[in-house]
Amino acid sequence: MKNILKVNKCLISVSDKTQIVNFAENLNRENVKIISTGNTFNKLLEKGIKVKKVESVTKFPEILQGRVKTLHPKIFGGILGDPNNSSHKKDMNQHNLSKFELVIVNLYPFESTIEQTKNINTCIENIDIGGPSLIRAAAKNFLSTAIVVDVNDYNKILNEIKKYGGISLPLRKILAVKAFKTTMKYDSIITNWMQDNFDSTESEDLTLLGKKISTLRYGENPHQRASIYGLTKNNDLFYEKLNGKELSYNNLNDLKLGIKLSAEFIDPSCVIIKHAIPSSVAEAGDIFSAWKKAFNADSLSAFGGVVIFNKTVDEKLAKTLINVFLELIVAPNFTKKALNIFSKKKNLRIIKIRNIKKIIKNYKQEFSLLPNCMLVQDVDNQKVTVKNLKIVSKRKPSKREVEDLIFAFRVVKYVRSNAIVIAKNKTTIGIGSGNTSRVDSVQFAIIKARRAFKGNKKNLSGSVLASDAFFPFSDSIKLARSANISSIIQPGGSINDRKVIESTNKEKISMVFTGKRCFSH
Amino acid sequence: MKNILKVNKCLISVSDKTQIVNFAENLNRENVKIISTGNTFNKLLEKGIKVKKVESVTKFPEILQGRVKTLHPKIFGGILGDPNNSSHKKDMNQHNLSKFELVIVNLYPFESTIEQTKNINTCIENIDIGGPSLIRAAAKNFLSTAIVVDVNDYNKILNEIKKYGGISLPLRKILAVKAFKTTMKYDSIITNWMQDNFDSTESEDLTLLGKKISTLRYGENPHQRASIYGLTKNNDLFYEKLNGKELSYNNLNDLKLGIKLSAEFIDPSCVIIKHAIPSSVAEAGDIFSAWKKAFNADSLSAFGGVVIFNKTVDEKLAKTLINVFLELIVAPNFTKKALNIFSKKKNLRIIKIRNIKKIIKNYKQEFSLLPNCMLVQDVDNQKVTVKNLKIVSKRKPSKREVEDLIFAFRVVKYVRSNAIVIAKNKTTIGIGSGNTSRVDSVQFAIIKARRAFKGNKKNLSGSVLASDAFFPFSDSIKLARSANISSIIQPGGSINDRKVIESTNKEKISMVFTGKRCFSH
Repeated sequence: MKNILKVNKCLISVSDKTQIVNFAENLNRENVKIISTGNTFNKLLEKGIKVKKVESVTKFPEILQGRVKTLHPKIFGGILGDPNNSSHKKDMNQHNLSKFELVIVNLYPFESTIEQTKNINTCIENIDIGGPSLIRAAAKNFLSTAIVVDVNDYNKILNEIKKYGGISLPLRKILAVKAFKTTMKYDSIITNWMQDNFDSTESEDLTLLGKKISTLRYGENPHQRASIYGLTKNNDLFYEKLNGKELSYNNLNDLKLGIKLSAEFIDPSCVIIKHAIPSSVAEAGDIFSAWKKAFNADSLSAFGGVVIFNKTVDEKLAKTLINVFLELIVAPNFTKKALNIFSKKKNLRIIKIRNIKKIIKNYKQEFSLLPNCMLVQDVDNQKVTVKNLKIVSKRKPSKREVEDLIFAFRVVKYVRSNAIVIAKNKTTIGIGSGNTSRVDSVQFAIIKARRAFKGNKKNLSGSVLASDAFFPFSDSIKLARSANISSIIQPGGSINDRKVIESTNKEKISMVFTGKRCFSH
Repeated sequence: MKNILKVNKCLISVSDKTQIVNFAENLNRENVKIISTGNTFNKLLEKGIKVKKVESVTKFPEILQGRVKTLHPKIFGGILGDPNNSSHKKDMNQHNLSKFELVIVNLYPFESTIEQTKNINTCIENIDIGGPSLIRAAAKNFLSTAIVVDVNDYNKILNEIKKYGGISLPLRKILAVKAFKTTMKYDSIITNWMQDNFDSTESEDLTLLGKKISTLRYGENPHQRASIYGLTKNNDLFYEKLNGKELSYNNLNDLKLGIKLSAEFIDPSCVIIKHAIPSSVAEAGDIFSAWKKAFNADSLSAFGGVVIFNKTVDEKLAKTLINVFLELIVAPNFTKKALNIFSKKKNLRIIKIRNIKKIIKNYKQEFSLLPNCMLVQDVDNQKVTVKNLKIVSKRKPSKREVEDLIFAFRVVKYVRSNAIVIAKNKTTIGIGSGNTSRVDSVQFAIIKARRAFKGNKKNLSGSVLASDAFFPFSDSIKLARSANISSIIQPGGSINDRKVIESTNKEKISMVFTGKRCFSH
């Protein structure tokens, strides 16, 4: 091994003192001299480690209640000096700077402090100044200094010292990258906290720091690589897998849509997603009926689907679900007996998401990557209730129709534009999704609805239709009438609204406006 | 105004010396004492500013070729000391620390250095250590120190000193946030550079730092806020608007899809996007014919569409385009005469994207935000050419059919799954998009294709069909035959492939497999 850095002297200044005594003991054994700051020094000395105080180098005391300890040219000269540089060597000799080949630092726990207290002064005091300076200096000078910021790297250092008599260049480089990552992340946490506490104006900056949670088998297609990154400190996922294979990229994509849609409902509901489109949705008095209704509405599409329930899945439901090929079964909870049934299918993915509503409430933005730039928008969090409805037709919708209209509009919000949902008895019976023309979505939703009732036109009678945006023309209204649809919900807002309303009156259909469109592409 | 910080002494250490002389002159006039490092000191002295060297405070020279200048307790004590804290005050008196109320620092230009050179040592020398330490120390102690990192803030400081006799707490807080943002960003650039240069392994971290380019009028719907953030240093957008209103969120979303699809073609082509779905696409011998073919294929959907050309738009084409209501006209270039015609329509958005293929080549990943986590995948960059095709049917496709098959498969890659594209003569004639069942997409694509030919079934004869994934059953083949489709392209890979091929042979349709599916949700 070339380029081995022999370690004569080491600086230790750690806030998290886990394993530090053992590590220092081993360094002592390798004849490494240890210099240390305040509390670290005390702890090491107490455990019988051979250690000297930073003050023995600086001849200057710790001041300002510990704010200034190591910020001294004797320390930084020892870290930043490169003995292979003749000019550096001259300065080091002249000023009697002794080289630190190893620097062990971890930072004041700013992140956990801000979780524990709202006291601004306590938080500020936990902004480490000396630590990041040491880390950055040592990382810059990786050619003649090794920097350790992570307890998990102590053994790597010891192993190399034992094996090679020093620290290799490849390891020093890896540690340098990790060091700058650490200071970057530390300052991003401080920045975010300051923004939250100092400055209520909207930020002009976008900061996203993620830690890889796992590499997925592949992306939307097998030739695309894909990974999932955690964006919070603890990297906990929002779901818990209780049974089955790892989730695929497409599973996660379906899950994303499914939980948003599921969060719209309070009554027992069942949402089935296929190819990131709701294939059918139902609300009912109990979870078993919700499943039956949703499944029967489009059993063809349910094959291989992702199913989301908003109530506990019990044994009775589990016994039925196990007979259908499903990719994912998602619920806030499962009874023990239900889990027992599922466990017989080793591959069947059972996902628990305890509090979907809360998760969705905290899920505030959507990103879309463009070349060299990113679109960021608020999620569409409109809630449609009976209060938002404006009846614009002569015929008033019945109470049952109003309930179905609201149900259908909640679903259509999650169908791709141009989106049409036909529903009856709080069950979708035809969904027209992702067409370039609205009237096509109406036509295709009707074809599906007729199929749901095996062509029995009479069964469509009394069904309602929801549109994610206004109707530009009356053609869709005529089509709706031909399918015996009795009531329509739409945002309104077209310059042709008057003509569309006239057409509705002529066809004796009732119509309500919500006032807000819900495009989703 | 309460909480005004009177400025007696200021530390200046700037790499970018723009406006620093004028600023220092003004500080002198306000009786602020200035202390400065090496080159900054020389420049100020030369211009007649009253200034002292940092060494006059530290009694220690700059060492290690400038690596250590300010890292000294006399400097950091003066920055981090809080005169309102009695313990601090005692230390400051005892060690004769003089307070700096103002710190002006900007950093070594690491980012521009790495753009200009590949020399690792030069880059490393431009990692600033002292600067970020000063910035962070002053920002932590915003209660008694003001930190300036941006030339554009010099006047804010002077204005407040003139107006209030010092610097207000709100401004100090804003500056502190900006300071930590600056060090965070600086370290993220270093981290990325180190990763690229030291470590070829895949990163476990995701770092996205964006600067807001503009706030959009709204998002997908008027009640959603939206912004666009630049992800590169210069914040240049990938497109140039030559005429018309600002782009909306939905325009940008359509543009995103449109340029990807357009980049698939070398011959003159026209892509029309509506609601983030290709509504029609055509390739032809010239750009005018491509437009005519694409427009006629679905003139209904083209209304309000986003149109992307891959060749220069000239006067003849412009004269035709101006008669259609279009949201966006996009091309690598426009003749002067064409622009002159468009300029008559004040609102019509004319977008120039000089090198779509290069932009798309650098556009490597896709993001999807989930609760507390993010999905990241490679874009689907498969290219289908005649070499990838495997003929699996008895009947071989003709040369014309092969060309149409490849054309159709290039389009179907950008249609939402389950996706079906029917095409003839390098023109789409029916697109089935975003259905939960593949056979539905086939059926709906046929309905649209028949409409394109006004119900004339014969015209469909000889058309080809592309599917983004395999056919699970033979039903789609029978439907295709009923529409006189003569050739099919699909990835293959179903356990029912044999049955599907048999059905193709029975219907005397030719079929090719590509081997790679192209789901896009």
